[in-house]
Amino acid sequence: MGKYIRIRRPDDFHIHFRRGNLLKMVVPHTARYFGRALVMPNTKPKHIGTGEQALEYRKEIFSALNGFDFIPLMTIQVTHEMTPEMVRIASQCGVVAGKIYPMGVTTNSENGVTDFNALYPVYREMEKIGMVLSLHGESPSCNVEGLRKEQNFLPILQIIAHDFPKLRIVLEHITTEEAVSVVASLDQNVSATVTVHHLFLELDDVIGYSRRTKGYMQPHHFCKPIAKHRRDRQALIDAVTSGNPKFFYGGDSAPHTESYKEAKDVCAGIFNAPVALPLLAQLFEEQECLEKLDPFVSRFGADFYQIPYNREHIKLVEKEWEVPPIYGEVVPFMAGEKLRWKVV
Amino acid sequence: MGKYIRIRRPDDFHIHFRRGNLLKMVVPHTARYFGRALVMPNTKPKHIGTGEQALEYRKEIFSALNGFDFIPLMTIQVTHEMTPEMVRIASQCGVVAGKIYPMGVTTNSENGVTDFNALYPVYREMEKIGMVLSLHGESPSCNVEGLRKEQNFLPILQIIAHDFPKLRIVLEHITTEEAVSVVASLDQNVSATVTVHHLFLELDDVIGYSRRTKGYMQPHHFCKPIAKHRRDRQALIDAVTSGNPKFFYGGDSAPHTESYKEAKDVCAGIFNAPVALPLLAQLFEEQECLEKLDPFVSRFGADFYQIPYNREHIKLVEKEWEVPPIYGEVVPFMAGEKLRWKVV
Repeated sequence: MGKYIRIRRPDDFHIHFRRGNLLKMVVPHTARYFGRALVMPNTKPKHIGTGEQALEYRKEIFSALNGFDFIPLMTIQVTHEMTPEMVRIASQCGVVAGKIYPMGVTTNSENGVTDFNALYPVYREMEKIGMVLSLHGESPSCNVEGLRKEQNFLPILQIIAHDFPKLRIVLEHITTEEAVSVVASLDQNVSATVTVHHLFLELDDVIGYSRRTKGYMQPHHFCKPIAKHRRDRQALIDAVTSGNPKFFYGGDSAPHTESYKEAKDVCAGIFNAPVALPLLAQLFEEQECLEKLDPFVSRFGADFYQIPYNREHIKLVEKEWEVPPIYGEVVPFMAGEKLRWKVV
Repeated sequence: MGKYIRIRRPDDFHIHFRRGNLLKMVVPHTARYFGRALVMPNTKPKHIGTGEQALEYRKEIFSALNGFDFIPLMTIQVTHEMTPEMVRIASQCGVVAGKIYPMGVTTNSENGVTDFNALYPVYREMEKIGMVLSLHGESPSCNVEGLRKEQNFLPILQIIAHDFPKLRIVLEHITTEEAVSVVASLDQNVSATVTVHHLFLELDDVIGYSRRTKGYMQPHHFCKPIAKHRRDRQALIDAVTSGNPKFFYGGDSAPHTESYKEAKDVCAGIFNAPVALPLLAQLFEEQECLEKLDPFVSRFGADFYQIPYNREHIKLVEKEWEVPPIYGEVVPFMAGEKLRWKVV
């Protein structure tokens, strides 16, 4: 019998469920493995901007659960229209986090934030009532090149964290050495999520310069923030295997149908929900710290969000399987690849 | 009446014509505007490796000219199989350049070179008989990240240039500030070609971080070497508008059918032949040096290759037109965009 590991049922603190048919298809892929997931609000045609909309969206997610025991943790998108009053009501509706997208940095962020100072009354209310501030950390400035956008955002994070010492802030899907180091240096009110694909991909795996790409650009490896350099990926691996509770799992699983990925205009996003846990097990095993998988995916996030751990457990075994080329109309991360670990 | 400029009929010192149906479609797009083009040898299913194959390929190109007055300048691909004897025979067949692809760096380079020292007898013969050495300047080492591959190749160029001071060498489709500076610093036996797309694109225009991309990755902006940073593009613009004869036009027009660009594995290459001259005119006008367009596209290359200037002239006028979304099955550079200049 091969190796296996038993962990608490994990949580995914960053997920895109979309709406409609796509939602119906993808929700069970998360609900099967994860106890809870923090559901991003940048939906189309309209973002989730109020507690009421979050409740309605939550209902849609529940209707797609297929019997799985799963709790969606709801968010609202913080735009320049947000007021402290709206934050308060959203919190009463069970919304646990407000998410900020800087304008124009990713999928459905046209209504994003340009002036972070203008939102101080909103941060103050969030701090007061204990709502988490969730940040897509890329500079909205046109003068900052893509590869520098995360680094360039860090001073914004530092200022907000300094001015609101009790506001819990998550820098989402970090991709750079600099982000790791700044988050590590800040107080316990600041954490970061790390996706599974940023632990496996580098820029060269997107732009066709790594051996695995055979020279081809890979639209299915394209996401925002884009994967960075080798040293950055190493810094992320070091962070998640360090046992530092500031770094926990948020997969940013972000499905687009095949026709939006293999296209003239390639949408940003990687659908990783079906492969996340097997890949994480592989990574932690390779790093010889399988025992740190459980805290990373099942405890540190819950601690930060101040919610209890999931009570059930899941088991991962070392057993080869091949990732399907497509689920419905969505090509998953690692499509067609053989993975070494499997959730049973 | 709008502005216009009359220039000598230009040459394109770097082009991919492919073979078969694709060749038939693309050759007239070059032959219409350019007097000559240096035809790259990395064809499929087999590269052009001998003088005889070059002659046969030349015949195929001639059969696609559609009556245009055009001369293809033939090349052979220098692999580890190449011998001085083969170089001599190729030269007798009219081949003007030997092209080296480092292994694995671009489309159809699986048979590329890994050991540049092993080819010294070949360089010696090329130097002796006056055949140009044409280099795809990217490091074949897996340990060098994509964005650094050109810089990392420069020492190889410097050593060959030093050891063969009479060998004429062209560093093709340069993309970095460092390449500009090294080529400028070397003796007159070393030149570089610059494409039109590298004068217009930056990495962010490929990976979906510039305003023009609206956040989407752009497979039709994907080529090798990939477009680099803003400062690199500026260095290229400065080089081609400087009047330094070391920098001349080689478009690297590299067609792939739409289904190979909007795909899981996106092929590297931009089909720019139909838009190259209008875009160059626009750029030189914006840089307020339209008078330097003629030497860049019509004289410096011919000087370096030691061939006479074309005798005819062409006229470009300031007249808006819209680039078709597709030619045959090939999406051109700037598809659907309005251009300000037009060849008449």
